[in-house]
Amino acid sequence: MAAEVSALSWRELLADLLETAALSPSTPTAPSPAPDGFWAQLATTRAAGQHDGRLAGRPALRTVNLRGLRGGAAARDPSVPDDRLLHFITDARSDKAADAAASPGAELLLFFPRSMCQVRLSGALRLEHGTDLVAAVWARLSNKERRYFAWPAPGRLRTTAIGSDDDMEAFAAAAPAAPPAERPACFRLGVLDVDFVEYLNLGTFPPVRTRYLSNSTGVWDATEVNP
Amino acid sequence: MAAEVSALSWRELLADLLETAALSPSTPTAPSPAPDGFWAQLATTRAAGQHDGRLAGRPALRTVNLRGLRGGAAARDPSVPDDRLLHFITDARSDKAADAAASPGAELLLFFPRSMCQVRLSGALRLEHGTDLVAAVWARLSNKERRYFAWPAPGRLRTTAIGSDDDMEAFAAAAPAAPPAERPACFRLGVLDVDFVEYLNLGTFPPVRTRYLSNSTGVWDATEVNP
Repeated sequence: MAAEVSALSWRELLADLLETAALSPSTPTAPSPAPDGFWAQLATTRAAGQHDGRLAGRPALRTVNLRGLRGGAAARDPSVPDDRLLHFITDARSDKAADAAASPGAELLLFFPRSMCQVRLSGALRLEHGTDLVAAVWARLSNKERRYFAWPAPGRLRTTAIGSDDDMEAFAAAAPAAPPAERPACFRLGVLDVDFVEYLNLGTFPPVRTRYLSNSTGVWDATEVNP
Repeated sequence: MAAEVSALSWRELLADLLETAALSPSTPTAPSPAPDGFWAQLATTRAAGQHDGRLAGRPALRTVNLRGLRGGAAARDPSVPDDRLLHFITDARSDKAADAAASPGAELLLFFPRSMCQVRLSGALRLEHGTDLVAAVWARLSNKERRYFAWPAPGRLRTTAIGSDDDMEAFAAAAPAAPPAERPACFRLGVLDVDFVEYLNLGTFPPVRTRYLSNSTGVWDATEVNP
């Protein structure tokens, strides 16, 4: 006998989890609220040519600030397409930009340790720079966040001694007094075209694990699997 | 001029971060303390043959409970080899076991949002089942943790209706009264043979990002790069 499939979509489950997390930000509920969203982990495949040949083809992992997800409002809004839901700012000069260009396959994870829930989202990662959403996200950034894009190229050899006058200047401590009139050329929005989602809930009994797969027409199929 | 390189090893940096996190477990300091360790994220490469052909070769991501790291004591103990430091329990029937068998390259991440620090550890993942460490970890598990290995194969199609009597029985709510005399055949310890570490600290100014690469003789070289 096949398992009964949850009537909730993955967006509804994600919205519920984010709302609960946003309501109690002072408790040890991860993913912790981050500026304008939540912290999440992003996995890509390391492109060749990065600092050591042994690393090419291995998965690479880092934390990103998923935006537009505060309180799950975006996840509940049916006018927000799936890919607009899961975006983060990044630098065109970063390793993850090179990774996405060589191998678009990527996975995002949000983990909620208090409720023992986890949401994994897999899809194709692309970096946008000329869309309305990019402009809207840039407009909402703090000056502190904007200054990262004026720093020397991330991940490249550091040419100044840490803490020296040259170094302090290279990473300019103070945020610019006024936001730059234009977005820096290296500013990008990472957008995930998600086609596979896995929801795990070990906080209930019996535990639940549901896979959502988007078919070629964009319709989501849900399957219950063993946790 | 080359940047000055930190005199601290990556193990010392990790021990310091874990000690600070363990001292204040009730604050929203991630990685949250988990049973006998800390939560971390693990990225692998999806093996072929898993539920949809489109997913093969993409990175896969999940949360694991890194053990032996409480308070950073293990990280400070020079008699604990690098690979013994970073272990987690897993199931031989899980997707990540298939991933590691097909592509051992893997990455672990610990993120500390309060201090805005992140440690990434890359290496070869292997699953052990007959070593002294496996026996020692099994002996320390709670009965609640042990019961996961008596559940139906993780990730396979769920054959019982969720919440039905059959389902309740399949996932046996109660922990066994006494631990099994022997470890289940599917019990494994995931061990990462780490050869590349990246430490990022955005909580200080100027920010720090240090790469540690192990050469063919096992000696670690540190390089300062731009954050």
